[in-house]
Amino acid sequence: MARKRQNRLPPPGPETASAPDDDAPIYARIRDEFAAKIATGKLKDGSKLPTVRELAKERSINPMTVSRAYRELAERGFITARPGSGSYVSRPGRNAANGRAQTTAEPSIDPGGISSRLFELARAPGVIAFTGNYPSVEMSDAAAFARCLQESLARGATEYFRYDPPAGREELREALLPFLAEHGIVTRADDLIVTSGGQQGMDIVARHLLARGDRVILEQPAYFGAINVVRAAGAVPIPLRFGPNGFDLNEVADAIRKHNPRLIIINPTFQNPTGHSVPLDQRRGLVDLARENGIPILEDDPSPELRFRGQPLPPLRALPGGNEVVYYTRGFGKTFIPGVRLGFLLPPRGGLHGCLEIKATTDLQSPALLQGALADYLRRTDWQTYLKRLRLGYGERQEELFDILTATLGEYGSLALPDGGLNLWLELPGEISAREVYFNAVRRGVAFAVADSFSFRPERPSALRIAFGLTDPKDYAEGASRLAHVLRNVVSPQRSLSSAVV
Amino acid sequence: MARKRQNRLPPPGPETASAPDDDAPIYARIRDEFAAKIATGKLKDGSKLPTVRELAKERSINPMTVSRAYRELAERGFITARPGSGSYVSRPGRNAANGRAQTTAEPSIDPGGISSRLFELARAPGVIAFTGNYPSVEMSDAAAFARCLQESLARGATEYFRYDPPAGREELREALLPFLAEHGIVTRADDLIVTSGGQQGMDIVARHLLARGDRVILEQPAYFGAINVVRAAGAVPIPLRFGPNGFDLNEVADAIRKHNPRLIIINPTFQNPTGHSVPLDQRRGLVDLARENGIPILEDDPSPELRFRGQPLPPLRALPGGNEVVYYTRGFGKTFIPGVRLGFLLPPRGGLHGCLEIKATTDLQSPALLQGALADYLRRTDWQTYLKRLRLGYGERQEELFDILTATLGEYGSLALPDGGLNLWLELPGEISAREVYFNAVRRGVAFAVADSFSFRPERPSALRIAFGLTDPKDYAEGASRLAHVLRNVVSPQRSLSSAVV
Repeated sequence: MARKRQNRLPPPGPETASAPDDDAPIYARIRDEFAAKIATGKLKDGSKLPTVRELAKERSINPMTVSRAYRELAERGFITARPGSGSYVSRPGRNAANGRAQTTAEPSIDPGGISSRLFELARAPGVIAFTGNYPSVEMSDAAAFARCLQESLARGATEYFRYDPPAGREELREALLPFLAEHGIVTRADDLIVTSGGQQGMDIVARHLLARGDRVILEQPAYFGAINVVRAAGAVPIPLRFGPNGFDLNEVADAIRKHNPRLIIINPTFQNPTGHSVPLDQRRGLVDLARENGIPILEDDPSPELRFRGQPLPPLRALPGGNEVVYYTRGFGKTFIPGVRLGFLLPPRGGLHGCLEIKATTDLQSPALLQGALADYLRRTDWQTYLKRLRLGYGERQEELFDILTATLGEYGSLALPDGGLNLWLELPGEISAREVYFNAVRRGVAFAVADSFSFRPERPSALRIAFGLTDPKDYAEGASRLAHVLRNVVSPQRSLSSAVV
Repeated sequence: MARKRQNRLPPPGPETASAPDDDAPIYARIRDEFAAKIATGKLKDGSKLPTVRELAKERSINPMTVSRAYRELAERGFITARPGSGSYVSRPGRNAANGRAQTTAEPSIDPGGISSRLFELARAPGVIAFTGNYPSVEMSDAAAFARCLQESLARGATEYFRYDPPAGREELREALLPFLAEHGIVTRADDLIVTSGGQQGMDIVARHLLARGDRVILEQPAYFGAINVVRAAGAVPIPLRFGPNGFDLNEVADAIRKHNPRLIIINPTFQNPTGHSVPLDQRRGLVDLARENGIPILEDDPSPELRFRGQPLPPLRALPGGNEVVYYTRGFGKTFIPGVRLGFLLPPRGGLHGCLEIKATTDLQSPALLQGALADYLRRTDWQTYLKRLRLGYGERQEELFDILTATLGEYGSLALPDGGLNLWLELPGEISAREVYFNAVRRGVAFAVADSFSFRPERPSALRIAFGLTDPKDYAEGASRLAHVLRNVVSPQRSLSSAVV
């Protein structure tokens, strides 16, 4: 169970953060200025931007500079250029690309672009990024995997450069069986589909099961990748409130009666973004409800190994009857090797053929060389030893960051300490706009993801996801201090940045 | 322009082909026996199979053996098991997996499973497989690519095991620019999306542009991967007759008036499966029609470098106005490195953002390590020299196979000699069922793809795709002889196999 603390704000300390975008090129500053105005609603949807000439004249800069800023805003979906008329703030839910209504039922903060944004921020110089919820290359087993790759290539790459069956290489599917058995899942190699990461597993299941207008029970908040696959299928998400104690089974039963959903999507262990886990009784209850009502469950389980305390919880797929209703999927990026883009999908028996067809339609197969190296890795290296080291290292980091954040942020947030995973979920007082915090924080040199990215409801929770997979522990204190500074300024915007410094 | 010949059948020679599936396990023989009966319509859709016990008793075999055969038939979508009732031949267009109507408007020969089938056949011992329309590892530049991979790993794999932006690595998008310029396509790195093969590029465009019920003009016959993405989007393909002289622009104009299509899909150079190319005037005309009517074109261009004779033809994207309407996509498997599963998509400017969102939803990004190695390969190795060698080698093979086939098959088929690519398209007399030829051929030890796999029309053309990328030239004569034998038997089924041998 998660511990929860609320602390008082400490006296403000000296402000050491430099605003890194003061050094950014002018076009980037204009781009980010307008992006912030649009994202925070200061520029309304559909309103017209100044023309390139007007803005260039007003600021005494080159029109090419404005033009580049506008182009990048358009490419990120913030604005739409109408030839002969000018540039307008894009209306959410419309696809700027071809003017056709998108499948998104509600506005969202640049859902496809959010990943791009996270990458950019995490790599910008001077920014302390709490955006990576996967192990750093140094902490991960990437070196061992690279050795497997090199050995595969040295043996002769011939077999890896042919086409393979869509289900994936048999050697990898075989190697996954003992790995799955560790989590209590007993299955056959022929029941598995190798995927290009956990994201693809979710997308395949959504495409297989959902038609336009279908209802899907989805935890709220939810991983944006899950929201995206539901929307891309044209389906409508029905929110299931998800918190430190999991969810309410009665709410699920009500939603089933009311909405006749075609699918339930859940990330039950160290959930992304909150870090919370679903207790065992709720897991059992959910599988029973799904079986009684004939509703499949998509279980996204990216990092069950990252447990720092408490007893392991079985995946839904391993529970009695789980193999009848649960589509179990995961990638290897969040626990083992970031960026390898491999994972697998284990459908219930009846779902295999349909999912395989979609896998073939999507990309024919995942890359054989990487599959071969991952099979090697799972067979030969001692990943249990690696996992112990990983848990020890990140367990310490999690506690350290938690202590610093609670001490630094105090009254501005409420923080839970999950039993595992690389995310902390900072809930802000209702009057604070997480989106405004986000845009100000970027300017102050600290980055994270905001609740908006994990929400499909118009009423957005005010919370931040603090992910610490890639952050150097030496930067925890400074990052927390920058964030506290931003929160103070968002709450009391009349105080200027300089006057806030004591 | 393609040469076309029709020859007379030579006198039948000695039959040397062993039927390789005589050595197959019993379950596999039962599986293939029923698959053939279903595929050829001898077992009707919806009809009931004997129960496991009945069949086991009838043939004096173990019920487990029958059970395994039925399970594999169910997994391949041939039959559906109804608990408590028995096994039934699946009704086409229904998804056996969940009983929900599929997006396929018409029956097709196991569209998702066709790739699995091709792989199985190509690797079965004793089978002469004309199924690979991509260079063999020995002919391809896989060794050079493997060296690029090894060097990337040796330099330190750190940067390749992080997450990357969905659009792909900048180094690869930059390296693609001179490559594209060779084909007359001038663009910017920021306009490109790296994809997991050409198949993914097509799937992204279909998901971006199409809604359920939308009409799509699609060449007939067409690559089954293109048919699949149209169907997966729930769209309806409108056939455009495609032959040795390309297509008829008036037919396109008519289809636009009649059907108000949302997209035109075309593979204009060395088309898969026919090998035919679209002449320049039709390319220009199609781009003009698309612009006038505001209909985007998806141009699939997997192997323009495989030209053995004739003048190069520019891709549609390189023609005047092409950059306004053409989504240009290709993979690197068909010309450079089979199985690398990388390609790119170049949308028109307005389509970039939407396609990028779908790329992120599909699999977040393509594997960074492979992207880095491909960038290296394109930058550093002399792929122009490699292409010359490839063209020389396969150009000779194409002529040799063409001569053998025309001499051996004679009256049973009409064969064109395309200007490039690794496919020959053997059109059979109307009374011959290509599907029946297929199933008999597999039993006689020769494999290819049938027109059914490339068709979305109920009236299926009778033709075979003879792909020679992986076939040893030493096997050409024997493969042609086995095929001739099968054709004779399909045409005159009253003659038994043995009596057909002189």
